[in-house]
Amino acid sequence: MIYLDYAAATPVSEKALRAMEPFFTEDFFNPSAAYYPAKLVREKYETAKNEIAHLIGAKGTDLVMTSGATESNELAFSSLLTPVNQKVQARIQTPQNLPEVLVLETEHAAVLENAKRFSNALVKVDKNGLIILDDLKKKLSPATRLISVSLANNELGTIQPLAEIAELVRSERMNRLRRGNLTPLYLHSDASQALNLIDISVARLGVDLLTLNSAKVYGPKGVGALYVAHGVKLSPVFLGGGQENGLRSGTENVPGVIGFATAFKEAKSHFSSNRKTYEKLTKILETELKQSKIEPKFLKHKKSSLANFCPVCFPGLDAERLIYKLEEQGVLLSTGAACAASKGKKSHVLKAIGLSDAEIAGSLRISLGRLNTEDNVREAGRLIREAVDEECNRIGEGDE
Amino acid sequence: MIYLDYAAATPVSEKALRAMEPFFTEDFFNPSAAYYPAKLVREKYETAKNEIAHLIGAKGTDLVMTSGATESNELAFSSLLTPVNQKVQARIQTPQNLPEVLVLETEHAAVLENAKRFSNALVKVDKNGLIILDDLKKKLSPATRLISVSLANNELGTIQPLAEIAELVRSERMNRLRRGNLTPLYLHSDASQALNLIDISVARLGVDLLTLNSAKVYGPKGVGALYVAHGVKLSPVFLGGGQENGLRSGTENVPGVIGFATAFKEAKSHFSSNRKTYEKLTKILETELKQSKIEPKFLKHKKSSLANFCPVCFPGLDAERLIYKLEEQGVLLSTGAACAASKGKKSHVLKAIGLSDAEIAGSLRISLGRLNTEDNVREAGRLIREAVDEECNRIGEGDE
Repeated sequence: MIYLDYAAATPVSEKALRAMEPFFTEDFFNPSAAYYPAKLVREKYETAKNEIAHLIGAKGTDLVMTSGATESNELAFSSLLTPVNQKVQARIQTPQNLPEVLVLETEHAAVLENAKRFSNALVKVDKNGLIILDDLKKKLSPATRLISVSLANNELGTIQPLAEIAELVRSERMNRLRRGNLTPLYLHSDASQALNLIDISVARLGVDLLTLNSAKVYGPKGVGALYVAHGVKLSPVFLGGGQENGLRSGTENVPGVIGFATAFKEAKSHFSSNRKTYEKLTKILETELKQSKIEPKFLKHKKSSLANFCPVCFPGLDAERLIYKLEEQGVLLSTGAACAASKGKKSHVLKAIGLSDAEIAGSLRISLGRLNTEDNVREAGRLIREAVDEECNRIGEGDE
Repeated sequence: MIYLDYAAATPVSEKALRAMEPFFTEDFFNPSAAYYPAKLVREKYETAKNEIAHLIGAKGTDLVMTSGATESNELAFSSLLTPVNQKVQARIQTPQNLPEVLVLETEHAAVLENAKRFSNALVKVDKNGLIILDDLKKKLSPATRLISVSLANNELGTIQPLAEIAELVRSERMNRLRRGNLTPLYLHSDASQALNLIDISVARLGVDLLTLNSAKVYGPKGVGALYVAHGVKLSPVFLGGGQENGLRSGTENVPGVIGFATAFKEAKSHFSSNRKTYEKLTKILETELKQSKIEPKFLKHKKSSLANFCPVCFPGLDAERLIYKLEEQGVLLSTGAACAASKGKKSHVLKAIGLSDAEIAGSLRISLGRLNTEDNVREAGRLIREAVDEECNRIGEGDE
């Protein structure tokens, strides 16, 4: 079996699983309990949070631990639920119905669906999936309160210029201050796909809110975090016991958070070697695919994308058929985001970068990971090529 | 070490942990992916949901899997966010400002805090913590949309007469139908503490919404479920990929749900033996405690309470001091709900049953579990008694 869908899910690393185990059994205590063994669990939990935070240049107290990226995104959007100082805003005669939230048109459903709850506008991307900054500037208004742009796209792997966006945000804030408009403006980024390959520093990125996801970084599913910069006001998604500084009630998922911290640390220790490895592996894959009867269209941005992504399109073919054919050969890959693909939805990401319906129908999302080697990637490339060629022949015969 | 705080947290059972492990590693696939190994994971996930549902007399499709009881409660309260047919409601001239939601005054913070977001009224309990049904009847109005009463209280273990409450709900629904008032009325119950000891059937209880919690039934933390009866309309707490029938987006926590199912099945197979065991153990404990220099006040309802609970009050003593003293002897117990106790809040539950401040200050929550034996409970009882006696002496000396 050759797995090429690491963007959909990653196995939990051996090390992370071993780190979690004691917290299921002997160290199972409720971290809020008063006795010493429970306080030790609390300490280890807080240490894990500090470790995760440290890996993105933040402090443990800046993190709210969640049940995954979807919850983190929900919590980030809760900043829009906190009331704005109306008196101050009224002074500057903002036209009605200006969008409160700007999101990239290629965002994951967990961001897009949230944006729909508010007045929103979609920011366009170019044919490589990169944000068009001029479009962002055009749509940025005195009423905008949140901009949400993922660090790396989950279908193409395109890395967005967060620091440049943060620069725009800063200058807009300065403008507002000068005009006495105290409407807050926050920059949120979903970094779910980026944690394995990008060395993240919240200061360098300039984000106010950052979504982290354990399940994509060889940690357990059902665990995530939201980085929250000082001064950013959020509304809790859950009410109750008041855990996570009142922002996320519910008994802490201690083993999950310990597993996330361990997996993330492990991933970070491999950053640079990873990138080189994946560049080599995708090269091998591309070389194989180029020998297909149909010329593949590689959809990846040459300079700004995750090294382990290799989105590719075989125009005129049916990618769904390819996937089932390849599965029989033991090659596992997808056409797009798992949650969208399972509903038979056409990729809004591929549409946004200008692909025709026929091109979208012929597109594969290949994403590499730890168990991929030069040999199995070459083998996978050969099998994909053969499947493509067979499909070409089948269609050719049908045409006759 | 003798652990007497199973109401705060339970260790994950050996069997549940073993069942989870493969889903962290080899079967790590995203259950929404299209290839066969992922579909197998989906099947096992759905099987686990069916098993959990079956244990409460429901179907897998009636469950929404969540990150725990707090999220389940939040989702249950989202029924109040769905708009009511105003036209129909207007016909019956309901007085303004009638409470939409009725909750028991002894509910967990995860219910009480939610209730505060809506117009609400608290329903009173008697001195044993049992709901006063006449108070519920009095407060039930044509505008009431949700009644939330936990199956068993998390500090006292008092079991509420859900079936009787459901009977009231049914008769109120009939009244509304006759008057043309189509305002829906739902009955929600948080069964977190009850799963280990009570054989639950949603039909017999007559609930529309039921919160389940893995962490209290020897399953993993960070996993829960909400049973949703047919026809009950909820608003999703998270938006995104549309998992759990659109009610709970986010990649499924496959190992967590498998672990929950395994642990819950295991617990259910021991139901009747458990009850007898715990009755015997609490008897032993009570016998020991009765020999203290201060006469203990046992707070448990004689007939309607969880067999593993033994809430007890030593009037005039400082329970916090007792806990620290006992911790040194290896006996772990608490003064109340872990999340509340950690903030130094006085128990609203003990207040509701009419305890004085001095009595509340002298109260311990003892809750037994699987690792308790006749021997270690007798030993714990002796150590608690000794600690109580020492405290009495200390106070006596201070008085002189």
